[in-house]
Amino acid sequence: MIDLPRWNLDDHPDADAAATAYWARQAQLTKPPRSLGRLEDLGAQLARLQRAERPVARPAACVLFASDHPVAARGVSAYPIEVTRAMVANFASGGAASTVMCRALGIEQRVIDVGVRGAPSSGVHRAAVAELPVGDLVVADAMPRATYVAALAAGAEAIAALGDVKLVALGEMGIGNSTCAAAVGAAILGRPARELVGPGTGVAGAALAAKLAAVEAALVRIGADAGPIDGHVAMQAVGGRELAALMGAMAAAAERRIAVLVDGFIATAAALALCAVAPGARKAMIFAHRSREPGHARMLAHLDARPLLELELALGEATGALAALPLCDLACAITAEMATFAGAGVPDRA
Amino acid sequence: MIDLPRWNLDDHPDADAAATAYWARQAQLTKPPRSLGRLEDLGAQLARLQRAERPVARPAACVLFASDHPVAARGVSAYPIEVTRAMVANFASGGAASTVMCRALGIEQRVIDVGVRGAPSSGVHRAAVAELPVGDLVVADAMPRATYVAALAAGAEAIAALGDVKLVALGEMGIGNSTCAAAVGAAILGRPARELVGPGTGVAGAALAAKLAAVEAALVRIGADAGPIDGHVAMQAVGGRELAALMGAMAAAAERRIAVLVDGFIATAAALALCAVAPGARKAMIFAHRSREPGHARMLAHLDARPLLELELALGEATGALAALPLCDLACAITAEMATFAGAGVPDRA
Repeated sequence: MIDLPRWNLDDHPDADAAATAYWARQAQLTKPPRSLGRLEDLGAQLARLQRAERPVARPAACVLFASDHPVAARGVSAYPIEVTRAMVANFASGGAASTVMCRALGIEQRVIDVGVRGAPSSGVHRAAVAELPVGDLVVADAMPRATYVAALAAGAEAIAALGDVKLVALGEMGIGNSTCAAAVGAAILGRPARELVGPGTGVAGAALAAKLAAVEAALVRIGADAGPIDGHVAMQAVGGRELAALMGAMAAAAERRIAVLVDGFIATAAALALCAVAPGARKAMIFAHRSREPGHARMLAHLDARPLLELELALGEATGALAALPLCDLACAITAEMATFAGAGVPDRA
Repeated sequence: MIDLPRWNLDDHPDADAAATAYWARQAQLTKPPRSLGRLEDLGAQLARLQRAERPVARPAACVLFASDHPVAARGVSAYPIEVTRAMVANFASGGAASTVMCRALGIEQRVIDVGVRGAPSSGVHRAAVAELPVGDLVVADAMPRATYVAALAAGAEAIAALGDVKLVALGEMGIGNSTCAAAVGAAILGRPARELVGPGTGVAGAALAAKLAAVEAALVRIGADAGPIDGHVAMQAVGGRELAALMGAMAAAAERRIAVLVDGFIATAAALALCAVAPGARKAMIFAHRSREPGHARMLAHLDARPLLELELALGEATGALAALPLCDLACAITAEMATFAGAGVPDRA
């Protein structure tokens, strides 16, 4: 067991008061009770987090963490390892799905290189952890301890650098990282590899078999085939730098009471690891979507998370998180701007 | 059987060519194949409708139709009949959920009074049909033929007045209209009243029993208890002016190749009636959400519609349609703006 901070993100009396005020106001707005369903719940979560009767979703930002993975050399992905670096350049030049979505939504996207081979792309921040050693999770820990700690810190630093945002959409890029995420999920849930390993960006046949074999071997190596293991241990042993950075970023966001839009399978594995060691962080997490990766539903169920969207996405890069941002905007606008029965002179009930 | 136009909204060779071009472009964009799932399908539907490789979702607009219903006097709603007029004023003054959402989304909302008692609110267009006679669907047709034809026309005119929009979110306001919608749905599907009648804005107990009894009696009156009946016949006999206006608006939008964001239970009943008489109109319909009204799923299944959102909404006013508009925006932005593998120098597949 490693000795890292167990973040204390407990609730606060002001959060309860804000939630009470929020629901009292909802009852006065010109609509039947609960008629805006999950949009009302979403507003309530933000009200509690922000300790405000009328929460806001802006300013918002998107942060992506990108890294290579030694396990990719085992042929576990449909794409060559060079794609990670090429996609980082694509973010920087504005052509990736995620970047296009950020532009459409009017929010800034920041890309943090936490371990991509070659010279960094212009406009991309390269974190110190990018220079630290990593391992192939089949035969060694994915991150030596110093690398793991630095990766967590890179995530936290990215949040600190955002300044005063209310909401952050977090995502990743890293060829091979659905293998790591499956291993992290299986280790924390104490489930067999086959329940978490899926097609990722589209593997089948021999590549899918290689992916499954890699995760099975990794779980045996760390003793996770015998039952659930600690979130930190799992992340260090079989995760990856961008997953650990996501975990650190989610913790830092929760500490600052910034809402986190959690993306798909990879980001949810990071959320799972964080909640295993700091359950209070769950309150800051808005689960944006359920992807078509089969193992995603299993992790979401463990987190008692019911995502806002089910659009059969399987891209990562925070695309699912970004697709849910407008629902946060609308939930906040409704609460802030709707008229009350009394104010509008609308009769309430028969 | 009444003799009204059977709108011809058949497909066009250019639509097929546009869809082919759209999917060819999707395959070149820097993402794994099909990784944007239903957002890709949404873009394809718009590409086919607009006959364009790169469809657009804007300009967009929201149109609401509002009307009273004689059946409301039977105590079928949780709210007094006066709420319809008060809510129309609330739209006009900017305080309703729907109006707040339109503002947040940057689109215009138009409200058409197709039969609300009392003087019209400032800024609300009052259609000619508002002055025509109506009936209590339990004992008489909801609309005499002239009223029905005028209500269809009011919907079509509202679309014509929008000018060059690419997408319209359609909704309604009318205390008592979930009773009418349930009756229309049951009549067209040939199902018993109990399968379509639900709580609406929140009825239970005696009011719910009154609602069920009203629909049962209406179905017997028109012979719909013996099996499915024609869409026009059902709408005229047991619908309402705002439902018929929605039907006319959807037909006019489809004819102009304007995409329709279909809202919840009430709007879907209008879509069901239109598709029963003009199946080609289905191609223009984007089903925005599944509401928590139990009968909604039954109508959606008949239309082979899988809504984009499931947020437990039960408000109407196009709120669910509006919640899905950002997904249309994002689907179009992705297709229009993403880089290709060749253009971005990203390796495609291993």
